[in-house]
Amino acid sequence: MSVPNRNTLWGRVVVDELAKAGVDTAVLAPGSRSTPLTVAFAAHDGVETVSQLDERSAAFFALGRAKRTGSPVPLVSTSGTALANFHPAVVEANQARVPMLLLTADRPRVLQDSGANQTIDQEKLYGDAARAYRTLPEPAPDGRTLRSLRTALSRAVGTATGTHSGPVHLNVPFEKPLEPTPVPGDVTDAFLDAEREVVEGRDGPWVAMTQGRTTLGEGQRERLAAAVADAERGLLVAGPDSGLDADTLQEFTRASGVPVLADPLSGVRFGDHVADDGTLVCGGYDSWLGALDPENPDEAPDLVLRVGASPTSKPLRHYLRDAGARQVVVDPAGGWREATFTATDLVAADPTRLLADLAARVEAGSDGDDDGVTDWRDRLASLEREYWSLVAEDDAWFEGAVLRETVANLPDPATLFVSNSMPVRDLDRFGEPRSAVVTALGNRGASGIDGITSSALGAGHGTDDPLVLVTGDLAFYHDSNGLLACARAGVDATVVLVNNDGGGIFRVLPIESFDPPFTDYFRTPHGLEFAPVADLYGLEFVSTDSREAFRDAYRASLDAPGTQVVEVRMDGEASHRHREALNERVQETLG
Amino acid sequence: MSVPNRNTLWGRVVVDELAKAGVDTAVLAPGSRSTPLTVAFAAHDGVETVSQLDERSAAFFALGRAKRTGSPVPLVSTSGTALANFHPAVVEANQARVPMLLLTADRPRVLQDSGANQTIDQEKLYGDAARAYRTLPEPAPDGRTLRSLRTALSRAVGTATGTHSGPVHLNVPFEKPLEPTPVPGDVTDAFLDAEREVVEGRDGPWVAMTQGRTTLGEGQRERLAAAVADAERGLLVAGPDSGLDADTLQEFTRASGVPVLADPLSGVRFGDHVADDGTLVCGGYDSWLGALDPENPDEAPDLVLRVGASPTSKPLRHYLRDAGARQVVVDPAGGWREATFTATDLVAADPTRLLADLAARVEAGSDGDDDGVTDWRDRLASLEREYWSLVAEDDAWFEGAVLRETVANLPDPATLFVSNSMPVRDLDRFGEPRSAVVTALGNRGASGIDGITSSALGAGHGTDDPLVLVTGDLAFYHDSNGLLACARAGVDATVVLVNNDGGGIFRVLPIESFDPPFTDYFRTPHGLEFAPVADLYGLEFVSTDSREAFRDAYRASLDAPGTQVVEVRMDGEASHRHREALNERVQETLG
Repeated sequence: MSVPNRNTLWGRVVVDELAKAGVDTAVLAPGSRSTPLTVAFAAHDGVETVSQLDERSAAFFALGRAKRTGSPVPLVSTSGTALANFHPAVVEANQARVPMLLLTADRPRVLQDSGANQTIDQEKLYGDAARAYRTLPEPAPDGRTLRSLRTALSRAVGTATGTHSGPVHLNVPFEKPLEPTPVPGDVTDAFLDAEREVVEGRDGPWVAMTQGRTTLGEGQRERLAAAVADAERGLLVAGPDSGLDADTLQEFTRASGVPVLADPLSGVRFGDHVADDGTLVCGGYDSWLGALDPENPDEAPDLVLRVGASPTSKPLRHYLRDAGARQVVVDPAGGWREATFTATDLVAADPTRLLADLAARVEAGSDGDDDGVTDWRDRLASLEREYWSLVAEDDAWFEGAVLRETVANLPDPATLFVSNSMPVRDLDRFGEPRSAVVTALGNRGASGIDGITSSALGAGHGTDDPLVLVTGDLAFYHDSNGLLACARAGVDATVVLVNNDGGGIFRVLPIESFDPPFTDYFRTPHGLEFAPVADLYGLEFVSTDSREAFRDAYRASLDAPGTQVVEVRMDGEASHRHREALNERVQETLG
Repeated sequence: MSVPNRNTLWGRVVVDELAKAGVDTAVLAPGSRSTPLTVAFAAHDGVETVSQLDERSAAFFALGRAKRTGSPVPLVSTSGTALANFHPAVVEANQARVPMLLLTADRPRVLQDSGANQTIDQEKLYGDAARAYRTLPEPAPDGRTLRSLRTALSRAVGTATGTHSGPVHLNVPFEKPLEPTPVPGDVTDAFLDAEREVVEGRDGPWVAMTQGRTTLGEGQRERLAAAVADAERGLLVAGPDSGLDADTLQEFTRASGVPVLADPLSGVRFGDHVADDGTLVCGGYDSWLGALDPENPDEAPDLVLRVGASPTSKPLRHYLRDAGARQVVVDPAGGWREATFTATDLVAADPTRLLADLAARVEAGSDGDDDGVTDWRDRLASLEREYWSLVAEDDAWFEGAVLRETVANLPDPATLFVSNSMPVRDLDRFGEPRSAVVTALGNRGASGIDGITSSALGAGHGTDDPLVLVTGDLAFYHDSNGLLACARAGVDATVVLVNNDGGGIFRVLPIESFDPPFTDYFRTPHGLEFAPVADLYGLEFVSTDSREAFRDAYRASLDAPGTQVVEVRMDGEASHRHREALNERVQETLG
């Protein structure tokens, strides 16, 4: 098979190598300079392509899919501002450690700083947010150059998915012709035959990546196991994206008796292990921690293991700060994600592997005397139980109840994506742990509201689960362009749109007492009615204003094909007051 | 007057100093960390504020306004991904040299790299695209710190508007409390009194900026004037954003006889000077240059002065490349904006000041023998005249005719903003020079289609002119969020939406012959019907499919208050064929 020119060859090698490295989906934004990559992706049977028109949405879509699947989704753009539009998602991927692979087409080096059209300085455009940056050599039908290219691509996938997973930026300059226009003699058949022989002699990717996980030495594990065994009031705090394996977590908690405070995005608030009697998974701590005094040794942990990102719950973060306990941050990449600076230990180790080891050691070394452990666990279990009964008794229809209903009625399995700002906080407080396999995701790396819809649809694209997105009106407005993916990428979703006409979170902040400027500059009511957005993208739209209406529309949507936007009209002020009233009731009853 | 805390003081000083430095408008995106700035902007009577919900649109709005007015519009954001959303506009502002002042709130230094919420590495986030970067000191009621702050702000405005105008990034960390909550003793009245006395002793801004312009020495000017006087076939090529003053241009062309090839975005294709008999302003060169042979000395210039960015017209760029003439790039910042690398001279000088000087010298030194000059000018004048008669005779309704109609029927004065991709190219070919005061603008720095609507509305916010935007369907989709500014910033516009369902520009490229993947990955038809977008933002929407219907709707919109979207349904394929047919007719008739 002949190849019309070196750019076509380059594109094919890139896609071939990525496919061999496990890539099965790519997101392409239209543009001219990226033609060799686009043509090659479009022609490859093993890689599904999603064509997106807004690069910002495209990047969040790729992020969402990678977050759901663990595999990076190459993002292809033309040169110029196109790649600056990827930046918000790159920042999020960096902080949330989501694999991402950016393939940004560039003008050739010769046109740099010349005023040539759509030519900008693309080098290291994302700064330190990229795990690795490289400007690829310009295409050449030369053995060493092609081996270098294949090596760079294998390694890029490896770096993006490694211990400190995140974005990798490959900048790819191309000269014209960009199209598969024949350039006689540019790529000879003899060269191609020779190359094919070399490549076919390799099994799978050009460089087979074997990625180890950070593991402690024997003595280090022993000392940690002893600390766990000695603790009477241990706590395992699973923050967002903890990466914990639920079975291992269950082994650990059974062996140690340590209760788990599970952030809603930790990956362990929901799942079979929640139903296990030997495992206490708590989800109501944001409210019931107020009933404990962190400075009273009997009401505070004596050992805290922290896994994942910093928890969403501010009461939890403050409780840990004030508890004075030994507090161990376990992070596979040795990162520090604890912003009160009271943690005492940083353990650079893979948390799942560590917990499995601790479980085995604590189990083997148990002396049967665990009265203290049992008391502590019973205390938390009872707070957790009482909290959720109080919530269940509450029949007000407010924003928290929307999250409660949404979670309680999710199918099993399901993928749930929640927006930042209020939805994730309400999920934290009102999303009761369930034994259903619910994959709850959010963008907690930098906690922006800028690409929520696209991230959710990307996650939906990466799973057969039914997909539910809970978002607010500002986030929905911000990324409404992302809804084009419903049709273009074939993703169905139930979009729960909590519409309180502006930024509800500001009601929780002291600025609420200063109006002006509170309403115009912080809450920022926009008065938008969103039915036309659904019209634009051919989605169904139902507006609801009661629990019953919501429940009906929500259930109907879960059963229906296509995407439905279920709007929940809310008075943000009333919701905020009810959150406070309910919290007071909780403190009075439990405290 | 007391000040509740140091952050409030800091915010007030920032806004006070910016107002004294001439800032009259600011764009604010909602967020918590930026509260001290937002509160101060909201409270200042001398600065109009525009609250925008999507930071990408916000930044392009600020860019458009600054492009129209020449003054930077401070852009305020919270911390996190918010400022990454500014990045596309920052890239454009850098390359198009548009003043921009970014005030990005940040978490305090103490929270860096701690996993704290919405805390990212904001330092130098825009890399080399910013003319200057500074993390401001954390707020303190201390004389030196406040003087440093005021100095930094005066200088930031100076740098943003200087010879190499562009974006300046000030990163502004704040500790809590962010709101104007009283912190007893934080800012004493005695301190405030002392400060007030110092500030009131200064007239206007803390540092009065006096910005010189790059000017050549006597001998340098003399040599250039001699070259102009000696030339028989001179050409002045005014590229986008040339910054040329029309009166000076007129003096120069009268004195020298040099014809002007005026890019539609040069600032000199339209205006009173066009009607002047002594000044030849050409707009049809993209088509009629094909009738000249650049390698024939009689049909090529012997001296070219290039001002502004690289011209939109590719035939023009290639004609200059092939002409072998002395080619002088005049750039106030000494930048090189000529991507064929055939220019022979780079003159770092303010072009208006230089032309004024050359005009005086050439006038004074004229020997009356200008037959060659006259022949050359007559030849171009006749090509120009014939070209526009051919265009006028053409009665087809295609995309080029939309631009022709739009320009011919613009009120006087008017501000016209055109999208990249096809609209600016069609404006180049079909926007006939007029003596009306038409300010024609576009984003030709990096030529993205990502923020066109917002840039246009920003420009409209900076003028009393009627505002017309000509955009394509992809650009309209990309920045539809920007339409919220019609209501929020009180901007009225006529939006001419050339809808050919996808990327028409790809038809002009060789990829058109390769389908697949042409349709799905390059032209990318989306099938969107845009009436719901107008519904969402409360705008009028008229769809037209003939010249008459367009003309009626367009004129009606120019007379009406509010914003109207006048859609022009076009068959991109037919438009492309007609452009080619018309061009063939032009070449046959003139060549």
